Amino acid sequence: MNNFRFYSPTEIIFGRGVQKETGKNIKKYSSKILFHYGGGSIKKSGLYEEIITSLKEAGVDFVELGGVQPNPRLSLVREGIKLCREHDIGFILAAGGGSVIDSAKAIAMGVGYEGDVWDFFMRKTTLTKSLPVAAVLTIPAAGSESSQGTVITNEETQMKIGFNSPLLRPVFSILNPELCFTLPQNQMAYGVCDMMAHIFERYFTNVKNNDLTDNLCEATLKAIIKNAPKLLKDNKDYNVWAEIMFSGNLAHNGLLGMGREEDWASHAIEHSLSAVYDIAHGAGLAIIFPAWMKYVYKHNTGLFAQFAVNVWGEKPEDTEETLAVKGIKRTEEFFKSLGLPTRIKDILNPTEQDLLLMSGKATAFGSLGNFIKLDANAVLDVYKLAL
Amino acid sequence: MNNFRFYSPTEIIFGRGVQKETGKNIKKYSSKILFHYGGGSIKKSGLYEEIITSLKEAGVDFVELGGVQPNPRLSLVREGIKLCREHDIGFILAAGGGSVIDSAKAIAMGVGYEGDVWDFFMRKTTLTKSLPVAAVLTIPAAGSESSQGTVITNEETQMKIGFNSPLLRPVFSILNPELCFTLPQNQMAYGVCDMMAHIFERYFTNVKNNDLTDNLCEATLKAIIKNAPKLLKDNKDYNVWAEIMFSGNLAHNGLLGMGREEDWASHAIEHSLSAVYDIAHGAGLAIIFPAWMKYVYKHNTGLFAQFAVNVWGEKPEDTEETLAVKGIKRTEEFFKSLGLPTRIKDILNPTEQDLLLMSGKATAFGSLGNFIKLDANAVLDVYKLAL
Repeated sequence: MNNFRFYSPTEIIFGRGVQKETGKNIKKYSSKILFHYGGGSIKKSGLYEEIITSLKEAGVDFVELGGVQPNPRLSLVREGIKLCREHDIGFILAAGGGSVIDSAKAIAMGVGYEGDVWDFFMRKTTLTKSLPVAAVLTIPAAGSESSQGTVITNEETQMKIGFNSPLLRPVFSILNPELCFTLPQNQMAYGVCDMMAHIFERYFTNVKNNDLTDNLCEATLKAIIKNAPKLLKDNKDYNVWAEIMFSGNLAHNGLLGMGREEDWASHAIEHSLSAVYDIAHGAGLAIIFPAWMKYVYKHNTGLFAQFAVNVWGEKPEDTEETLAVKGIKRTEEFFKSLGLPTRIKDILNPTEQDLLLMSGKATAFGSLGNFIKLDANAVLDVYKLAL
Repeated sequence: MNNFRFYSPTEIIFGRGVQKETGKNIKKYSSKILFHYGGGSIKKSGLYEEIITSLKEAGVDFVELGGVQPNPRLSLVREGIKLCREHDIGFILAAGGGSVIDSAKAIAMGVGYEGDVWDFFMRKTTLTKSLPVAAVLTIPAAGSESSQGTVITNEETQMKIGFNSPLLRPVFSILNPELCFTLPQNQMAYGVCDMMAHIFERYFTNVKNNDLTDNLCEATLKAIIKNAPKLLKDNKDYNVWAEIMFSGNLAHNGLLGMGREEDWASHAIEHSLSAVYDIAHGAGLAIIFPAWMKYVYKHNTGLFAQFAVNVWGEKPEDTEETLAVKGIKRTEEFFKSLGLPTRIKDILNPTEQDLLLMSGKATAFGSLGNFIKLDANAVLDVYKLAL
């Protein structure tokens, strides 16, 4: 086990009706906020009205900025920063999924910085202060509601880049599983794939002696795998959504990676794919992760065999090689069963030149991953395995 | 799953050598502290000197108060409060096990309160502010290093009472498994029993639909059960202690009980036992928990059968009744294998009158527990099952 620091101060306010407490919870921090959201879904669902009412009841003034798209754009982040400065705003509320929360975090980073916020993503400067952010989560997926990360797409350069800092952890996040009842099936599946991927990035590590976090990763994966398929039959089962929403949060609050060396190659490989093609992150991960697993599993067949037994319930009698392959196959089949694409050609038809371009972008800052280091050629091989 | 709030802001600084960063981490909060500890063990181990050096290097002034005993006493807490007021101290560092940290928390509660600190424990007043506390942990057990609780013994009235508040969560805690290498075997066993008990109090619940936290409780118990016996053979295995220390922390930071109704009858029953006889808390729990399990398991045989299968690895072919009984037996045998007493008569010889007295004290504030409510008569029955 490696030395680690675990710091996850976000207060998780979880359960039925908790979005009505949004204003009351903000009031402790600020009386004037930016209310940031996406398209029309929170208006259709009634969440928008509930939040506005709760802000008014608590005496919290707000300026609105909607329009966040999937793969949140730098241009809207810049607009948010301008708004906050104009209105002297010191707190940002995000209502939506990971894209909205990530956009809110990037705005929070930029308000107090004199230069352009993209500087942080380009590693031109370091973050020393950021505005407090809170979230009302509507899509369990990205884990941004308590993570220290944000991922922003610069639409001019087609670069999708992540940034991490403990300063970006929301002060509180409101998680009501009822808010997921209106989520389309594909969104549910993308989210489930994303949270599983967050665990995979931590689980497959070269660090030895991680009994507790091995067990915790497996425990969370099993809760997801048991519950997600039930949503295909009944999208309004509170208890099932509660398991998925809680699991998605735990998958990315940092705990499951403590003492481990995390990988994150697959996320970077996916980001390059979805930056170019603007496909959903969860769909990209369902394509990239099985391919990555196939590319790397021989590096530690035992760990992939353990994954097959402890997560997928495969009988331990087989050889490690057989088990490892079975575990990867079960993962791919599970994604398929949720209606996800698992091959690039299910949804796209890139040329060899396109793959080369994406491999180059993915490795623009150097090799990817830690389980095995992947250079541009290796990333190209993963894309080809994913075709 | 019940609605819940999860808030665990304590920063966990974990690994080899991290105690040398104590001063640097305190400096962010305060330049003058109370340094609180127990007997001579931190002086013998060299930890005392390491902390003093680190405080001096960081420019942190300190006033010392040693002498915390197991089952920490109200009289020393009062002395600490007096010292903090005299020296205008606003931060308390605890170096030791749960008793020292609990004592530090109680001092932190009392400094800003005009009345006697025992008022909080007697529910005569509510806590609205408390000084920040940090810990250097030497005994993985109580989980006080990131919990919101403290338990203090009033030696005048022989009452041992707990108090909980989010204000009591330490701002940071330093966990170095190497600091456990000097721990006597009985202390290790008490600690292991204590952390397992913290999970049991959360695991056995009447709330349904807790797949994730069921899995997490089982995951943590399995890590403890796999590793603790190894310490009987080699008390200086870093990786084994790392699993135990991390598990002990997770067992009581709140996560494993989220969405569940927790029980806590066994802790109260044990507190009454150890307040009267001054035995170690972990020893008392090893005696009380198997008896409590025997008393209550028929209330939800299925849950106890699940416990036997998922935690102890019993084959699921047996009837639920058989499995439930096996799980309880395995628990008792495990405690025995660590050298713990599992019956009152292993270490004490109380009269019927003594048991009556303890049952009365344990239920002084009303019935205990939630899985099944236990009145004084039921508590007496548990004591008798534990004889």
